Amino acid sequence: MLFPSKLIEDAVNSFATLPGIGKKTALRLVMHLLQKEENDTKQLSEAIIKMRRDIKFCKTCHNVSDEEICSICTSSFKDKSVVCIVENFRDIIAIENTRHYNGLYHVLEGLISPMDGIGPEQLNIATLMSRVDNGEIREVIMALNPTIDGDTTIFYLSKMLSKYDVKITSIARGIAFGGELEYVDEITLARSIQARLPYESYLNKV
Amino acid sequence: MLFPSKLIEDAVNSFATLPGIGKKTALRLVMHLLQKEENDTKQLSEAIIKMRRDIKFCKTCHNVSDEEICSICTSSFKDKSVVCIVENFRDIIAIENTRHYNGLYHVLEGLISPMDGIGPEQLNIATLMSRVDNGEIREVIMALNPTIDGDTTIFYLSKMLSKYDVKITSIARGIAFGGELEYVDEITLARSIQARLPYESYLNKV
Repeated sequence: MLFPSKLIEDAVNSFATLPGIGKKTALRLVMHLLQKEENDTKQLSEAIIKMRRDIKFCKTCHNVSDEEICSICTSSFKDKSVVCIVENFRDIIAIENTRHYNGLYHVLEGLISPMDGIGPEQLNIATLMSRVDNGEIREVIMALNPTIDGDTTIFYLSKMLSKYDVKITSIARGIAFGGELEYVDEITLARSIQARLPYESYLNKV
Repeated sequence: MLFPSKLIEDAVNSFATLPGIGKKTALRLVMHLLQKEENDTKQLSEAIIKMRRDIKFCKTCHNVSDEEICSICTSSFKDKSVVCIVENFRDIIAIENTRHYNGLYHVLEGLISPMDGIGPEQLNIATLMSRVDNGEIREVIMALNPTIDGDTTIFYLSKMLSKYDVKITSIARGIAFGGELEYVDEITLARSIQARLPYESYLNKV
């Protein structure tokens, strides 16, 4: 692409480094900024700089946070005896938005993946163990993606946690609400038959 | 959406003001920036600030430019007797990328649109007239979108230009290369029959 201006070219190329944004989309974003007040560009620019510079990671659960300890860990409304293990902080946002979970979290920042050379020592597992070691935690919920890496990580963690007196659970896997049986893949369908529930426990869950 | 951090929330909301970017996409972009070096965020931020602050609009053709007069207007390789009228500078980029046009441009910065309350006086028409008035221009090519607003603008401009000794042309409209007749809308098909060309002029055009 030929550009009439070096300034435009630099801005387009910078936007195009972001995931899912190609040169054409980047140019559309630049056009938009040119049509708006200079202040709007400043605001966007400052918000991302500030976010990147000042963001902290909670010392307890590794969630993103404005303080040393995140608002979930310090909240007095949370049930501190339950910890939900997630891959990244985006999963925390997803679960918090359901408003159906009231415990704490622990962000692994990845999954065990031998193919990508990621072992347990690169994840936030040591801090999880010391949290469990404190004795306050009754239940650990595995809320990891249903992939090979997710299952490997769950297997490893459940082995590590087996020496403690904690209940280990996993979020339910099965056919999504609104899904159609005939389009579901075989593994999901087979597992959801194996993991069938008594009818009563299925009612009034959400 | 509930956010674990005000900094994240501000950054997501700023990204989400851009066209085509919703909150979920914005969150993905923020996640990406958090995983990359702080310097990458700085670079993006500085590129857009600098672009918005330092960009100039060419005094002759209103193209975006790093200087008072844009690189196309100052180029000694361009045919200065032909001017192509476009709606915005993105169209210049599109036409320049074809590498099949070697004249100058004039950016209207919009189209006449009575529905949106945009009249000729809000567009860069006065500067176009003074360029034509200079007597250097032989041909004016209308390269506007084939919409009602585009056609209205072409009609208005051709009336204004009729008092000058310039040839007025429009980019060809018809069935796009690779298009299929049966899927083309009636207006396009009807017009391309009316505007049919002798077979020889069709060959070896591009």
